[in-house]
Amino acid sequence: MQIFETQEERPTIREKLHRVGITNLRTVAKINWKGKTYTFIPNFEIAIDVPEEKKGIHMSRLVESITETMSEAVEEEVIQPHTSLEELELAIIKRLEKKHPHKRAEVWIKTQLILERETPASKRKSLESYDVEVGVIKEPEKVEKVLRVKVIGNTACPHAMANNQGKTHIQRAVAMLEIRTDYDEGIALEDMIEVVEGSFSSPTYTLLKTIDENAVVQRMYENPKFVEDVAREIIFKAKQRFKGKIHVKVVSHESIHKHDVIAETWYV
Amino acid sequence: MQIFETQEERPTIREKLHRVGITNLRTVAKINWKGKTYTFIPNFEIAIDVPEEKKGIHMSRLVESITETMSEAVEEEVIQPHTSLEELELAIIKRLEKKHPHKRAEVWIKTQLILERETPASKRKSLESYDVEVGVIKEPEKVEKVLRVKVIGNTACPHAMANNQGKTHIQRAVAMLEIRTDYDEGIALEDMIEVVEGSFSSPTYTLLKTIDENAVVQRMYENPKFVEDVAREIIFKAKQRFKGKIHVKVVSHESIHKHDVIAETWYV
Amino acid sequence: MQIFETQEERPTIREKLHRVGITNLRTVAKINWKGKTYTFIPNFEIAIDVPEEKKGIHMSRLVESITETMSEAVEEEVIQPHTSLEELELAIIKRLEKKHPHKRAEVWIKTQLILERETPASKRKSLESYDVEVGVIKEPEKVEKVLRVKVIGNTACPHAMANNQGKTHIQRAVAMLEIRTDYDEGIALEDMIEVVEGSFSSPTYTLLKTIDENAVVQRMYENPKFVEDVAREIIFKAKQRFKGKIHVKVVSHESIHKHDVIAETWYV
Amino acid sequence: MQIFETQEERPTIREKLHRVGITNLRTVAKINWKGKTYTFIPNFEIAIDVPEEKKGIHMSRLVESITETMSEAVEEEVIQPHTSLEELELAIIKRLEKKHPHKRAEVWIKTQLILERETPASKRKSLESYDVEVGVIKEPEKVEKVLRVKVIGNTACPHAMANNQGKTHIQRAVAMLEIRTDYDEGIALEDMIEVVEGSFSSPTYTLLKTIDENAVVQRMYENPKFVEDVAREIIFKAKQRFKGKIHVKVVSHESIHKHDVIAETWYV
Repeated sequence: MQIFETQEERPTIREKLHRVGITNLRTVAKINWKGKTYTFIPNFEIAIDVPEEKKGIHMSRLVESITETMSEAVEEEVIQPHTSLEELELAIIKRLEKKHPHKRAEVWIKTQLILERETPASKRKSLESYDVEVGVIKEPEKVEKVLRVKVIGNTACPHAMANNQGKTHIQRAVAMLEIRTDYDEGIALEDMIEVVEGSFSSPTYTLLKTIDENAVVQRMYENPKFVEDVAREIIFKAKQRFKGKIHVKVVSHESIHKHDVIAETWYV
Repeated sequence: MQIFETQEERPTIREKLHRVGITNLRTVAKINWKGKTYTFIPNFEIAIDVPEEKKGIHMSRLVESITETMSEAVEEEVIQPHTSLEELELAIIKRLEKKHPHKRAEVWIKTQLILERETPASKRKSLESYDVEVGVIKEPEKVEKVLRVKVIGNTACPHAMANNQGKTHIQRAVAMLEIRTDYDEGIALEDMIEVVEGSFSSPTYTLLKTIDENAVVQRMYENPKFVEDVAREIIFKAKQRFKGKIHVKVVSHESIHKHDVIAETWYV
Repeated sequence: MQIFETQEERPTIREKLHRVGITNLRTVAKINWKGKTYTFIPNFEIAIDVPEEKKGIHMSRLVESITETMSEAVEEEVIQPHTSLEELELAIIKRLEKKHPHKRAEVWIKTQLILERETPASKRKSLESYDVEVGVIKEPEKVEKVLRVKVIGNTACPHAMANNQGKTHIQRAVAMLEIRTDYDEGIALEDMIEVVEGSFSSPTYTLLKTIDENAVVQRMYENPKFVEDVAREIIFKAKQRFKGKIHVKVVSHESIHKHDVIAETWYV
Repeated sequence: MQIFETQEERPTIREKLHRVGITNLRTVAKINWKGKTYTFIPNFEIAIDVPEEKKGIHMSRLVESITETMSEAVEEEVIQPHTSLEELELAIIKRLEKKHPHKRAEVWIKTQLILERETPASKRKSLESYDVEVGVIKEPEKVEKVLRVKVIGNTACPHAMANNQGKTHIQRAVAMLEIRTDYDEGIALEDMIEVVEGSFSSPTYTLLKTIDENAVVQRMYENPKFVEDVAREIIFKAKQRFKGKIHVKVVSHESIHKHDVIAETWYV
C-alpha cells in the first residue's frame, strides 16, 4: 500500500507558521526529585515551526518524541528519570531533532508541585500545592526556558485598615511569577514559589489548627498589603534573586466586590 | 432527491433515553422586564425523551423551536417579548409540541441578571451582576420549573474572631439557591437573589467609595458567619418565602487556605 | 490561653445541614495498583452532616483525616499503599470517625487514570488518559460508593451518511458513565472505561501512525452512530456487566454546529 | 471624619507597575449597531500604570469611569449609545483622564456577537454566535486598539483523505484572529469574523435542515484542510485586508485523538 505524505506537499498559500503542534496531551511522567522518584500526569504542548514551502507537519512524530522520552524503553539508554521538568523537555526536543526537521521547537509542561511546609504555631507538616508550568524553547542560536509558578495567598487592605481602626477586608489572592532565561540558568521552581508565597499578607496552609489559624490571622493584620504591594515585592525580590526576563501578575478576589483587582509588572 | 429519515429507524439496542437534545446553544433573546425590553445572549439547553423503538431525534426541530420563538416572525402572532425566562421557555416547548413527538420536554436557559443596588453610605447606584438559570420541565401530567440563582458575597469567620480579639479572616463566598416548583408558582429571581444576598456577612458592591467601603467592613465584623450559617439562613428564609423543593450550596474561597469550604442542604 | 470552640455553640437558626466540609483540596496520594506504587495529585472533597443544634464543624479535623491517611506516618500502622481509590477513601472515613462526630460522611476524589492501549494497525503501545471520580458515602445503615469515568471518543453521523453516499460529519464526543452501588461491589474503573470506550464510533488514541489513522478512519465509517446510539450501547452493556444504579451522559461536539448535542439516560 | 488616602503614600519598595486595575467586572452596556440599540452584559478589564513613588490606585475611580460612561446620566451629555466597542472604551478612558492621573490606560471588553447567516441550501436565516474581545490602549504618544475574534469551524484531514479513498476524519476547530492597530484604523469585527469563518473546511451553522447538512458535508469533503492550512489562509487574507500587527491561532479538537492540534502564526 502506498502512503501519501500530504504533509510534504507545497501549500497553495505560502506563509511561514511559527508554532505547529499538539496541545492538551496528558500522559504519565516520571521525575527524580531530590533523590526520590515521582510519577505524575502533566499536560503537554509541543510545537515546531513550518517553513513556507511545506504544507504540514507529521504530528505523530511529536507524540512519539514525548512518549519515547517518557518510557525510555530503548535499551541503549540509561533508564534514569530526569531531574527537572526542563531536563525532561530538552530530552524530548533531542529526540524530536532526529525525527522531524525544524528550526525552532518548543515543549511546555503544566503540572502541580506539592511542597512540605510547617504551620506557623503548632509546627505541623502541611502539604501545599502549586500550579507550575515550564517551557523549553530551542531556536537556531540558543535554547531558553520559561518557568512559571502560581501561588495562592491573601491580601489585607491597608486603606480600609487605616480608615476602620484596624479592621479591614481580607481576601484570597493568586500571584503568578514567570521568568524567561537561558536554559542553563539554575533556577528552582521551589525558590520562585518561596519568593511569591512570602510576598502576600500571609502564606496559606492546607492544615491549620486553632493556634495556627490565630497566627495566620495576626500576621495578615500586621502585614496589610494592596495587590500593588504584592506585585512590587515579588518583582523586587525576583530581580535580586533570579537572572532573566521577569513577569508578575497578581489577582485579588476581593471580598467586598464581585470583580477582581489586578496588578501586573515586568522587567526585561 | 430522496431523504433518508435515519432517526425514525428502529435501533438494534432497545433502551429508553430520558434526555436527548442540544446544549450550549447561544442565541439572542428578548425579554420585556418591568415594562422595558432587554436583549441578551443566553445559553440554551433543550431536551426530549426518546422511546425504545426510535433510533434518534430530529435535532434541527429543537433548534427551530428556539429560533422561531426568539424571532416570532410568524405573522399571525403578537410580537410581544415574553416577560420571564420561564414564559419564554414554555413558548419554546409549545412550538416543539407541534414539531416533534415526545412525552417529556425540558428547556434550560443560563444567563446573567443585572440589578440596581444602592451603596450603603454614599447611597450611589451600583449595578450588580448575578448568574441565573431557569428550566421548564414538561411531563405528561404536570409542568414544573427550576429556578437557580448564584450570588457573590463574603464570610467573616466567627471562630477566628472569638479567638483573636475581634480580628478574623474574611473571604469571598458564592451561594447558590435552587427552587423546583410548579410552573404556575410565582417566584421572582430578584426575590431569590435578595434572600441569598442578605444571608452573607455582607453583600458586595461593584462601586464603593471610601465611606461605603468602611460601611461594608463594619458590617462584616458585626456579622461574622461560618459558611454553615450562610447556608442555614438561606434555607430558613427560602422555606418561609417560597413554595417548592429547595437546594442551597455555599462555597467559601478561604483566604487562609488554598482549598474551599462548603455547606449544602436541601428541603423536599 | 483559652480557645473558644465557636463551632460547638447553638446556632440561632436551627436547620440540619446535609453536607459540610472542604472541597478542591489538592494533595499527593499513593496507590498500589496491580503491584506497582503510583504517586498522583488528586482533588479531594470531604463532607459530613451537621445536626440542627450544632453551629459548625471543625474543618481542620477533616483535613487531618485526609493528610494522616495519606502519610500513614503513625507507627502502629502497616505502611501499605491502598489498592483502590475507594479503599483510600474508606480509610479516610475511618480516621474521621475517631476525630469528629457525624452520622453521614462522604469522601470524593477526582483524578486521571492512564491506561495502556495498543494501536489498531501498527500494534504500538499508546498511553491513554481518562478523568475518573470516586466517592464513598457512609450512612448510618450502609456504605455506598459512586464510580464515575469520562472517556473521549467520537461519533460519525448515520443520518448524514445515509444522505451523502457514505460521506458524513464526524466529531469528538465525550461520554460519562456513573455507577452508584454497595461499597463491597467489586467494579474496576478500567472495566467501566472499557464499556464506554467500546461504544463510540471508534476509540481514540494518543499515538497514531498513518496505518493506525487509516484503521481508525475505516472503523468510524463502518460504525456510524448518533449520540443516542452511544448512550444506548453504554447503558445496555453497563446493566449487563455492573450491579447498581447507572447514569450515562454523552456530549458530542458537533463539527457542523457551534453547539453540542447530548443524550442522557439512567437506570435505578 | 478624616479619610486616609493610603494609596497616595510612598511605598517602601519602589517599582513601577505597568498595569493596575480591575478585571472580571460585569455590567450592562448599550451599543447602537447599524441603527439599532442593543443591550448586553460584557466583561470589563480596566488598568492604568502606577509610578514608582505611588503606593496604589483608587480602584473606585476606575469603576466610576465605566459605570458613568455606561449610564451617561450626566445631563450635559448627548444620550447616544456608542457605535462600537472601541468607541465605548475610549469614552471610558476620556472620563478616567479627569478622575485619576496616569500615563498609560487600557480598557478591555469581552462579549459575544450574534450575526445573521443564511444556510447553504434551504437559505434559512441562522443566528451565529462569536466570542469577541476589544481593547483600547492609550499611551503618552499614541492610542492603539486590539481586536480579537474567535470562530468555531471545522477541519477535514487531507492526509487521511488521500490515504482512505476519500474518507477522512473531521472535527470541530476554533480559530482566533487578533489585530493590533491604530485606534483610528477602521476594522469591523464582522469582517474579521468573515475572514476566519471562510478559512475552515466549512463554516458551521446553528440551524441545519437535512439539505443544508448535506451541503455542509459535501463542502467539508471538497475542501479538506490541515489546521496549518486554516492558519495560513487566515493570515494571508488578513494581511491583504487589514492594516496592523496580526496574530492567528487555530486549535483543532481532533476526533481521532484525545489531545488537540494547533497552528499559530503572526505578522508584525
